[in-house]
Amino acid sequence: MASVRIREAQEGDCGHILRLIRELAEYEKLSEQVQISEEDLRADGFGGNPFYHCLAAEVLPAPGEPQGQGIGSKIIKKVAQVALDQGCSQFRLAVLAWNQRAMALYKALGAQDLTETKGWHDFCFEEEAMRKLAGK
Amino acid sequence: MASVRIREAQEGDCGHILRLIRELAEYEKLSEQVQISEEDLRADGFGGNPFYHCLAAEVLPAPGEPQGQGIGSKIIKKVAQVALDQGCSQFRLAVLAWNQRAMALYKALGAQDLTETKGWHDFCFEEEAMRKLAGK
Repeated sequence: MASVRIREAQEGDCGHILRLIRELAEYEKLSEQVQISEEDLRADGFGGNPFYHCLAAEVLPAPGEPQGQGIGSKIIKKVAQVALDQGCSQFRLAVLAWNQRAMALYKALGAQDLTETKGWHDFCFEEEAMRKLAGK
Repeated sequence: MASVRIREAQEGDCGHILRLIRELAEYEKLSEQVQISEEDLRADGFGGNPFYHCLAAEVLPAPGEPQGQGIGSKIIKKVAQVALDQGCSQFRLAVLAWNQRAMALYKALGAQDLTETKGWHDFCFEEEAMRKLAGK
């Protein structure tokens, strides 16, 4: 079975993080929204008051075995541990409705779809709208 | 017209912040989810690496005028300014589908409903689910 090690990401991982962000955006048909650079990722995640925290999975696939089995679940379990250690009482994920595979995994792991069950909607002010509001 | 001053919240505001969180939760029929204390709000927002930032609106109502006019818009404009200053490229809000008044305001100010237009769903692992995942 593939060997997976989950660890905190380090500044030197930012190139890989950006590659994975781009692959995810391509899968989600949202590539035009990825305007971030490796430089931005370094500044935002590894300064004094970081905007994000990141976990990295190091995978050593077993010969003849398909890659990737169980990595998502392992990362979600680790996020739950880290969040509890930090005193969080819940953690949230955003998923596109057509991504039924991801939705099924999150539900199988115990998540609720708050949009379906409670009617929560995500609203977004994009940069142009923000500039108008801010008069900039 | 009412005079409104928007400023950064301070630790001494936590009692008022908690009261407003409770009033909002009551309006949203989610009071059972508010388990936070004033103590938690102080620790989470005013330590070394804060979990949240908060703006406060000080309102001096004009005599004979209904309170509250335009405070929401003023706070949203201020959030847009702060977010742009911090290098953010968007800001997001979560709204309950039945809260048509809030939705209409956000749309009028330039926000998009990403759940409606793109199908984004909010998934949530609550504390019990997190504990199961983390084996705690």
